Amino acid sequence: MRGSQTITFALGVVGVCAVSLAARAQTASTLEPVQYPESYRHFVHVKSTVIGKDSPDFQRNGGIHHFYANDKAMEGYRTGLFPDGSVLVDDSLEAQESAGKTTEGARHRVAVMVKDHDRYSSTRGWGFEVFKGDSHEGSLPAEGRAACVRCHASGRDSVFSEYRP
Amino acid sequence: MRGSQTITFALGVVGVCAVSLAARAQTASTLEPVQYPESYRHFVHVKSTVIGKDSPDFQRNGGIHHFYANDKAMEGYRTGLFPDGSVLVDDSLEAQESAGKTTEGARHRVAVMVKDHDRYSSTRGWGFEVFKGDSHEGSLPAEGRAACVRCHASGRDSVFSEYRP
Repeated sequence: MRGSQTITFALGVVGVCAVSLAARAQTASTLEPVQYPESYRHFVHVKSTVIGKDSPDFQRNGGIHHFYANDKAMEGYRTGLFPDGSVLVDDSLEAQESAGKTTEGARHRVAVMVKDHDRYSSTRGWGFEVFKGDSHEGSLPAEGRAACVRCHASGRDSVFSEYRP
Repeated sequence: MRGSQTITFALGVVGVCAVSLAARAQTASTLEPVQYPESYRHFVHVKSTVIGKDSPDFQRNGGIHHFYANDKAMEGYRTGLFPDGSVLVDDSLEAQESAGKTTEGARHRVAVMVKDHDRYSSTRGWGFEVFKGDSHEGSLPAEGRAACVRCHASGRDSVFSEYRP
């Protein structure tokens, strides 16, 4: 649901409460889908993390994580406020270890955040999606999306990562 | 020493043997310096490797290695032949491990390869340099440069890495 539609709907009901209801409806299932970021491997490499077997996060999120940002998102890292059009990617890959060397294996998933205040007004301006393996079809259910929004709320403009110079 | 100077010198001596001598002289100490690749953090991220404490390479090369390529070098990954102007970077960082999670620490060094058949005709068209820590001043001695050339000779157009899609 686009922001202008939300506003029209809200004005037709009863002010602040209606806006709140519309926002909640948008959060649940009517958000416009986030597209696969086709060119993300040419984005700027922000930083990387390896979540190993000794980490409490391994079951949920183990492997190599490379974070990428498009040019608009790089502006967000500089200013603290990510402009519309910002795209952030967490490229999650299997960590293959052999003889003390860790290399990249198969892709677990591509997790994406897209800033668009018009499309995602109810979720702090951010749309979230997850593409499993090498699929370009989003797989994130509504409850998963809600969890993303809740967790990321504590970040700086909903973003946790910082650019490594 | 530029290629045209090398050729002029060679013609003044005795053909093939002189070319070989000129090449050897160029290899030792007279190669034009490779400049620090100021914009490499905005190059394409090619792949990453973590060399851990259990690796036989740890003492020499331990840590997180991120490889970056400029647009011309990306053409080299596609075709197998890196055109002049190609720049490849191995960004080597301390691997900091805590509670099973490995993150990036201080920079060990930035190792650079630049393709320029004119400038580096005696070393298969590639110039090599190493910048320690965050320094922008090259630190590679002539014997280190010769070792780079020898080792890389077994690569595809002197390059070992392959682009991870």
